[in-house]
Amino acid sequence: MIKFNAEGALGFLPEAPDYKAAEKALRTLKEGTGEGSGFLGWVALPKSYDKEEYARIKKCAARIRDKAEALVVIGIGGSYLGARAVIEAMLSPRYNEIPRKGPKIYFIGNGISGEDLAQVLQLVEGKSVYVNVISKSGTTLEPALAFRIFKQFIEKNFGKEEAKERIVCTTDKARGALKNLADAEGYECFVVPDNIGGRYSVLTPVGLLPIAAAGINIDKLMEGAAKEAEICLKEDGSNPALAYAAVRQAIYKQLGKKVEILSCPSESIRFIAEWWKQLYGESEGKQHLGIFPASCVYTADLHSMGQYIQDGERMLMETFLCFDVPRVKVEVPFWEENGDGLNYTAGKEYRQVYEAAKEGVKQAHIKGGVPCMEISAAKQDEENLGALIYFFEAACGISGYMQGVDPFDQPGVEEYKKNMFALLGKK
Amino acid sequence: MIKFNAEGALGFLPEAPDYKAAEKALRTLKEGTGEGSGFLGWVALPKSYDKEEYARIKKCAARIRDKAEALVVIGIGGSYLGARAVIEAMLSPRYNEIPRKGPKIYFIGNGISGEDLAQVLQLVEGKSVYVNVISKSGTTLEPALAFRIFKQFIEKNFGKEEAKERIVCTTDKARGALKNLADAEGYECFVVPDNIGGRYSVLTPVGLLPIAAAGINIDKLMEGAAKEAEICLKEDGSNPALAYAAVRQAIYKQLGKKVEILSCPSESIRFIAEWWKQLYGESEGKQHLGIFPASCVYTADLHSMGQYIQDGERMLMETFLCFDVPRVKVEVPFWEENGDGLNYTAGKEYRQVYEAAKEGVKQAHIKGGVPCMEISAAKQDEENLGALIYFFEAACGISGYMQGVDPFDQPGVEEYKKNMFALLGKK
Repeated sequence: MIKFNAEGALGFLPEAPDYKAAEKALRTLKEGTGEGSGFLGWVALPKSYDKEEYARIKKCAARIRDKAEALVVIGIGGSYLGARAVIEAMLSPRYNEIPRKGPKIYFIGNGISGEDLAQVLQLVEGKSVYVNVISKSGTTLEPALAFRIFKQFIEKNFGKEEAKERIVCTTDKARGALKNLADAEGYECFVVPDNIGGRYSVLTPVGLLPIAAAGINIDKLMEGAAKEAEICLKEDGSNPALAYAAVRQAIYKQLGKKVEILSCPSESIRFIAEWWKQLYGESEGKQHLGIFPASCVYTADLHSMGQYIQDGERMLMETFLCFDVPRVKVEVPFWEENGDGLNYTAGKEYRQVYEAAKEGVKQAHIKGGVPCMEISAAKQDEENLGALIYFFEAACGISGYMQGVDPFDQPGVEEYKKNMFALLGKK
Repeated sequence: MIKFNAEGALGFLPEAPDYKAAEKALRTLKEGTGEGSGFLGWVALPKSYDKEEYARIKKCAARIRDKAEALVVIGIGGSYLGARAVIEAMLSPRYNEIPRKGPKIYFIGNGISGEDLAQVLQLVEGKSVYVNVISKSGTTLEPALAFRIFKQFIEKNFGKEEAKERIVCTTDKARGALKNLADAEGYECFVVPDNIGGRYSVLTPVGLLPIAAAGINIDKLMEGAAKEAEICLKEDGSNPALAYAAVRQAIYKQLGKKVEILSCPSESIRFIAEWWKQLYGESEGKQHLGIFPASCVYTADLHSMGQYIQDGERMLMETFLCFDVPRVKVEVPFWEENGDGLNYTAGKEYRQVYEAAKEGVKQAHIKGGVPCMEISAAKQDEENLGALIYFFEAACGISGYMQGVDPFDQPGVEEYKKNMFALLGKK
């Protein structure tokens, strides 16, 4: 379902990509014999997920869609990027502006801004509000501070009894501050699995509940992921995840190119790229190694980052993310006077024009010394997004093992917390 | 008004930054003796701008605020990033959702997506719509294709006569497809100055009209820029733009660190960073040189890119963008049960908590081998944003000259266009 094309990269390489090493990394992943093997729950997830809990997610989402005017989703990092990415890709970054059924959705607790909290409080005031708080421990600073405010808000506006209906927790199955609170207060709970790290959690309740509450078909999302899983776990040349991992590692190791730009076809894909940045940056950025993940939104950023990519430091590789068939077909209108001289595009569908721009850019960047890869899906829909998510996860695991790091830990993120807690006077 | 702090960077440098070279670059800029000296209109702009035209901008913006329910802003690159950046920083990225006077604002023509066009058409249908089309030539593909659609829309819904009231053009003063059309149709025009490139144009009518139409005080914006201009043109140690340019070039040249991350304190600053990326990337990314500009939104991205910055490839420098005083003060509430164990933060203002996180991160990143700089303004308001814009522009001009490139051209962006036009069958 996901196609990978390395034609614009292979010519740069002195040697062929090490597909054997990629196959070995994939076997390590499948057999669970590598570092971080306690966090491989995502590998079989698209088929092995808890069906009872999944049914509860759909039921809970239906209830929220029926009764809520606003859903406040509290989470940070992997506990918000995946859901926001899928919601924006499926509905548009203007998802709260476009007319649609179901609640408006507000992501909060993904930063430390009193102003942001005050603004969301103002936006939901007087509305039927539901809250989904997502935190494995319940003590992560940002979501915990936001939940303090919204727990108060719900109890003040709807009472402590109705809070049981309106607050839904996605947290550890048995332990932790949020789980304890949820049990004490009687909130419904969904599980952040022990064997799936935050950045791999979008197809768990972490991502699925907000996505379903936005009215997106999670069955199709999971089906797409399941189909792609079959393909991405094959140890042969037809596996696009294996090829992507092998080629990007070859560009990194053979050519020393240390920055990968994921170039997206529209603003609606900006947060797919943000999710991808966490997935790859956090998985590979360790031991003073790893490809730095950056992103562009095209064609907008051709008019901002285009100059650098064409002519700046030659340390870049680029991966174009494409969807073959547009969801909405719009033709460039003919203009009698041809005031802009663009009648040569009239009658063309916009996606055709975009394709010409993308191809033109790719050829120019290759000529400028940037190895270019392309990842494409048929359409920007649930099934293909599910497939894309799985593709990126599988390729990331393979790529991380090829690089020789544990792709599932994140030891560096604790460093700043010690300093921060000291500055905040935590005892 | 803008403070620059390099304490977290200087310790990494084997030699002191070359302030003499920075002063020389600044003199080149002021005297107009360097490459690209035809594009130095922005240097004196905050004082020398056309007062008659400025008054017309305010009048036009007031009319739009009075009569429009939706303002469609058509532009790409420098013709949209600055305005969007200031609007999101001043009003919030949710500017179309929060209750406020004046029209909703839609940026379009900044990509090639039929779906995006269809969505904005749907959102403005049945409303009083005004259009500001921004293009020096009128033939840039993306805005021109969007304008074809919205010109039709306005004429169909309001008639050709009323289109004269509803379509406002920001374009060349005398020539080009859009200027010719505007004259023929009788549209009001504002000028994209000949001596100011797109990425330096936010304080010209390009940025000022949409910003004013959003209800933002452009007098304050210009005043802030004018005050900062006095500081940033001084050839001495008190000039923060000169110091920023000297230090980032020293990190680049002495240490070979090739990626600069601008770390922003909230989602509302995301597009300030996008604007900054164009400014620096397009100015410096040439001749296979230049620091690659990237950005993070904190604290969100500590939970995504934090691991890489702490432990990944050591080719990074980081610049923290800060605002000292919050616009909205919210205290962390006390929670009797202390369910999350965070009562040690109770009673603190959120900005204090953010500051502790930021300081903790900065110290951790420095320890991890990332030279850190800090740029701070007193408050996220018009005056400080105007100052910040000028600060970044001045530092960019200085830094580009220090690097030995023309900071005002963009020869690389033409490369792909030839390919694209050929693929589209342009004759």
